Amino acid sequence: MNKTTLLSIFTFFTLPLMAQKSTFTLNDLIPGGSSYYRNSVPENKYLTWWGDECIEQDIHECRIINKKDGSVQTLITLEQINDILQTADRKIVRHLYDTSFPYAEKSLVLLSDSNRRILIDWKEKNVVWETALDIKAAHLDWNFPASALNSQSSTLSPQLSLAYTIDHNLYVLTADGKTHQVSSDGSIDLIYGESVHREEFGISKGTFWSPDGALLAFYKMDQSMVSKFPQVNITLPEYPVNSQPSSATSSRCATMSPDPYPMAGETSHKVYVGIFNPQTDKTLYLNTGDPTDRYFTNIAWSPDGKKLYLIELNRDQNHGSLDEYDALTGEKLRTLFTEDNDKYFEPLHPIQFLPWDDTKFIYQTRKDGYNHLYIYNVEGKCLQQLTKGTFEVFDVLGFNKAQKTILYASNEQDPLQQNVYSVDMKGRRTLLGNKTGWHNATLSESGNYFIDNYSSPTIARNIDIVSTLNSKSSPLNYLTASDPWDQFQVPEMKVGTIKAADGVTDLYYRLILPTNFDPSKKYPAVIYVYGGPHAHNIDASRHWGVRGWDIWMAQQGYVMFCLDNRGSEHRGLAFEQATFRQLGVEEMKDQLCGVEYLKSLPFVDGDRLGVHGWSYGGYMTTSLMTTYPDVFKVGVAGGPVIDWHFYEVMYGERYMDTPQTNPEGYEKTSLLNKAKNLKGRLLIIYGGNDPICVPQHTLSFMRACIDADTYPDLFTYPGDEHNMMGTDRVHLHNIITRYFEDHLK
Amino acid sequence: MNKTTLLSIFTFFTLPLMAQKSTFTLNDLIPGGSSYYRNSVPENKYLTWWGDECIEQDIHECRIINKKDGSVQTLITLEQINDILQTADRKIVRHLYDTSFPYAEKSLVLLSDSNRRILIDWKEKNVVWETALDIKAAHLDWNFPASALNSQSSTLSPQLSLAYTIDHNLYVLTADGKTHQVSSDGSIDLIYGESVHREEFGISKGTFWSPDGALLAFYKMDQSMVSKFPQVNITLPEYPVNSQPSSATSSRCATMSPDPYPMAGETSHKVYVGIFNPQTDKTLYLNTGDPTDRYFTNIAWSPDGKKLYLIELNRDQNHGSLDEYDALTGEKLRTLFTEDNDKYFEPLHPIQFLPWDDTKFIYQTRKDGYNHLYIYNVEGKCLQQLTKGTFEVFDVLGFNKAQKTILYASNEQDPLQQNVYSVDMKGRRTLLGNKTGWHNATLSESGNYFIDNYSSPTIARNIDIVSTLNSKSSPLNYLTASDPWDQFQVPEMKVGTIKAADGVTDLYYRLILPTNFDPSKKYPAVIYVYGGPHAHNIDASRHWGVRGWDIWMAQQGYVMFCLDNRGSEHRGLAFEQATFRQLGVEEMKDQLCGVEYLKSLPFVDGDRLGVHGWSYGGYMTTSLMTTYPDVFKVGVAGGPVIDWHFYEVMYGERYMDTPQTNPEGYEKTSLLNKAKNLKGRLLIIYGGNDPICVPQHTLSFMRACIDADTYPDLFTYPGDEHNMMGTDRVHLHNIITRYFEDHLK
Repeated sequence: MNKTTLLSIFTFFTLPLMAQKSTFTLNDLIPGGSSYYRNSVPENKYLTWWGDECIEQDIHECRIINKKDGSVQTLITLEQINDILQTADRKIVRHLYDTSFPYAEKSLVLLSDSNRRILIDWKEKNVVWETALDIKAAHLDWNFPASALNSQSSTLSPQLSLAYTIDHNLYVLTADGKTHQVSSDGSIDLIYGESVHREEFGISKGTFWSPDGALLAFYKMDQSMVSKFPQVNITLPEYPVNSQPSSATSSRCATMSPDPYPMAGETSHKVYVGIFNPQTDKTLYLNTGDPTDRYFTNIAWSPDGKKLYLIELNRDQNHGSLDEYDALTGEKLRTLFTEDNDKYFEPLHPIQFLPWDDTKFIYQTRKDGYNHLYIYNVEGKCLQQLTKGTFEVFDVLGFNKAQKTILYASNEQDPLQQNVYSVDMKGRRTLLGNKTGWHNATLSESGNYFIDNYSSPTIARNIDIVSTLNSKSSPLNYLTASDPWDQFQVPEMKVGTIKAADGVTDLYYRLILPTNFDPSKKYPAVIYVYGGPHAHNIDASRHWGVRGWDIWMAQQGYVMFCLDNRGSEHRGLAFEQATFRQLGVEEMKDQLCGVEYLKSLPFVDGDRLGVHGWSYGGYMTTSLMTTYPDVFKVGVAGGPVIDWHFYEVMYGERYMDTPQTNPEGYEKTSLLNKAKNLKGRLLIIYGGNDPICVPQHTLSFMRACIDADTYPDLFTYPGDEHNMMGTDRVHLHNIITRYFEDHLK
Repeated sequence: MNKTTLLSIFTFFTLPLMAQKSTFTLNDLIPGGSSYYRNSVPENKYLTWWGDECIEQDIHECRIINKKDGSVQTLITLEQINDILQTADRKIVRHLYDTSFPYAEKSLVLLSDSNRRILIDWKEKNVVWETALDIKAAHLDWNFPASALNSQSSTLSPQLSLAYTIDHNLYVLTADGKTHQVSSDGSIDLIYGESVHREEFGISKGTFWSPDGALLAFYKMDQSMVSKFPQVNITLPEYPVNSQPSSATSSRCATMSPDPYPMAGETSHKVYVGIFNPQTDKTLYLNTGDPTDRYFTNIAWSPDGKKLYLIELNRDQNHGSLDEYDALTGEKLRTLFTEDNDKYFEPLHPIQFLPWDDTKFIYQTRKDGYNHLYIYNVEGKCLQQLTKGTFEVFDVLGFNKAQKTILYASNEQDPLQQNVYSVDMKGRRTLLGNKTGWHNATLSESGNYFIDNYSSPTIARNIDIVSTLNSKSSPLNYLTASDPWDQFQVPEMKVGTIKAADGVTDLYYRLILPTNFDPSKKYPAVIYVYGGPHAHNIDASRHWGVRGWDIWMAQQGYVMFCLDNRGSEHRGLAFEQATFRQLGVEEMKDQLCGVEYLKSLPFVDGDRLGVHGWSYGGYMTTSLMTTYPDVFKVGVAGGPVIDWHFYEVMYGERYMDTPQTNPEGYEKTSLLNKAKNLKGRLLIIYGGNDPICVPQHTLSFMRACIDADTYPDLFTYPGDEHNMMGTDRVHLHNIITRYFEDHLK
């Protein structure tokens, strides 16, 4: 690492005028703070699509935006809607934020209001459909099949339907008003219609409508054989202070909530894929055979709704197969192809059929080292690698059927960016919209347009409406939000790269100077770290994606530093897999390169280094404090992993294999073994009901430290889970700050 | 309070020579510390009685002590015992500490070695009896009835027996070698043969042999209707780091231990009294009627073993009755008398029949304001108040049948002392043995002698053998132990009194000056507090009963202060009951008198006051920090009560009544309501599995502080219960000390 070179490129992006600017309060900077929205979140607009019409949703009305000049025209008003509701003798609604427009050709708007769902035809001025869901209804999954458009009137054909769950049972509500109870034995041990496999492998939901809405594929998970982590409810909503027990049998005593949690190497749950037919009220299950230690992921339907595809993964997570099942019989038809990886194979994207060719689909894989799009035919033959290069395709955004192009997001422009691209069937890629920053795009129905909500280090928030047809044409800029931080003293910030511990790889860092920086002073420095897979800290979004707390600490007089080490996301498979079977080891080496860099800065007091992180970052913090006890003086670890033995099967075994097959890796990375090394001040904070990094991690570490005669500190948020939200989050950051102020300043 | 007067009486007891003396380590001062026994515990001897022969128990031999001159003579040696065992082809034993000599007239010694119990006749050189108990056997209760002496040989008659429990079931082993299983449905919900009512009301065991050993009375407790507190086992002995689950069904996941815990005002357990007859193998239960909300306490047998007495108390704990039951039928014969109290009635002592008169018994009550001995006849008529005065009788030690005297302990000599007295049937009291200090006495069989193990502020430990026959004769001094603290710099200490907040009552305090005290300096001061009933901190035992940690803190440069406020023990009923229905309120007022006194001392820095306490003292500490937030800068509260709603029925309702009948008292004393007042630094420490002050106290307070935007600190000892023991206790006191060093110095 050439420090001179690094220092020579040291330029600061902002040289704010300090005069007349305010200082931040913590409430300005932390989500949940009373002034956070006012003082940290740039203005936003809520836009959605009605076919290719861009609609702005507001409290009192929905407006159509003219995509040429940005002028708006009222589409519907709250008054109109409530007139229709009152005429039909229904309860009114209070705002038009939660609206959606399912059919481009129809004047239909779906409204949500608490547990009510109402479909209104605003031209016909009638209530097409209304339902009041059980207050416990969850996991709502609407289906508005195209076939409903066959009807000339706005009356919907019965294909329209809604899947949802109550108390782990699955229900389907069809447009004829009939409620189908798909399961009745749901429980904490037997889950229907919800996400499975602990949301790994790209799984985020448990119901999957066939394209025509005729069938509903769903997950069923049996976790009766899984160990239950004994979560305890300490704070009882039914016990306001001094209340008496509400009945002879009720008690103000804390209660238990056993939570199935399969720990690495132990017995895991079993997953089944069912298919429910609302017309016959029948359910069948895919005939997969014994599901023990098999992952059924990335469910996708064939365009004709007759076949179901999924990617099956073995428990070792090094072998996958794309399998085709008959949706009507549940029988497996064939394996289209398989994919293996020496370390781990992690399928995250269901296959997607091309809208213009039912015989071909997109398959995403990192088999060449980066996630890219490939075209396969239904025989399982790879026809083409559509994208290629040392960048990551993040995801497919949709299609332009007429143009036969695929719209997707990637970081081809810069490893820190997310931009929108189109690619045609010849693999020609076109950057769409603004080429800087971090873009979140929502495609119109035809794919001719997308709403582009983006920011960059110097753009607080822009919303453009971008045409996908002509990359040369200027997008319509609908919103340019001012930066609420403009009124504040924002510290100077710099992003750059240093070399990783391998001497080769560039790692991105973000350095923040103390507010009112005086280069002749020596400042304490705090490293904020995450370091785990599927996450990054530094990107080209607003203010380089900085966290509010880092700004707060800079204002208190700390140099703040952050480095995305090897193992983090968006840098390719080899970068991520450098940590395989020994999580934390290479990551820490990289962080020590960051320390070396920090210490080389003349204004950093190398004797006053702190570190803070949460979750994987809590693991990194505790690891750093106990592996390099002479480097860090103070650490604050939140919701940490302490020992991968206590982490769950799906995530844990991907990176660590099992304790049975990788005992040396588990031993090497266990912080229980390192508790004896603790020298500096280490505060560990955990959510009292953390279901992710269960309290066993923190409490086992406390026990290990006590036994080893070392002295950590502790804080807990009873009733909170893995992350503190709302005002607890502000309290948390006061606790974290206080600890550094007590011991590092 | 007249400060001038108080200061004028300020004299220090010790003026140690500082030169050449060592400083303490924490390990020297805290039980569990590696050098605690060597450097804090004066030499001791283990003595027991064989009839009226005083026996010293040692590892290699037992010796008879000549009560006149203290010379010793070997009684039995380990070698002799092991010869006997080897000859009988039995396993040898390793020491003679755990010996007892059940019959004065017989050469029988009972040995305990792990789970073996062996009765040996050392003259006959044979093993009379041996049994190996189940490793889980607990609550052992031997019966060596006098009737066994009828036998000429040393072979014991079948009356000799042993009651014990395994997994909450009761067993009786008789001398014929037969094991009787008294119950078989024992469980955590149904407890046989153990202490009940949470050890309140003087209950410390669950089995009671009749005088002739023919019958066994026992407690049975049904707690199936009681709420279970969800204790969690985080640290699993079966999970050494990196071990694999021992079987497919085992897991390293934390487990639950639901613990029946009836909270104030809620449904409580039900207690039954059974009587088992080993000769018929039959059990009957006292016909008490529905036991709901009734306490059956202080079980006693009539001398003839035909009647059973108990003191029944109502749930309100303000009305008791002495009831007589027929031990052969279980029917209630009569109520001898009742006792009521406006606040609470707390019977702590079973009746005791006079050995020389089967028609009379001793009943202890505080009905005149202090605990005293009364003589009743079996008709329930009070014949005589035997002791009287503004002092407390602590307990009856035994009898001298020939002299018709009762031996007892009391603080008549001084409220801070415990001395041994005899009283004859005319109520003439005689002080026996040394008149200073704190005495623990063990009576010989006849009552002619007692072993007197005592200390005083200037006596580390003496063991005298005292004759009860002639109070004028000098006792034999068998041990004068040197004080291991003589080699250390012991800080100056003073005990005195100040007036309570009522302006009338004298309260005892203990003040410790910093080691190497410099009167021209200003020192931070820390108050150690308990403050609850049934406890005191200051007495006339060695070094005024000072705690090692107080000495440690004095060595770190703190003034240490402790005050036994109203509500604490040994000062009479009115003193104790001043706190009724509002625990903490009067106690805090008294502690503030202590603060006023402390602040009046020229060397105390009134801006640096700290407070520390455990259990009730943790409640007091948290109360003081949140009630007087401008007085105390730093507090450390251990295992605190936070809200009496969460405390158990027996203790809690005695002092607080129920939340239903005393809602204002519960509200006034709830620290959840005061969490918002916290200003200073408050560290709360709790045992992760505390079954007494369940973690719900601490965690609810944490939640209340978070919600109120106040900032306590936290520490926990996972796996520990209400108190930290062993090396954890040393760790704990390092944590406590560090907190004051961090924030008060």
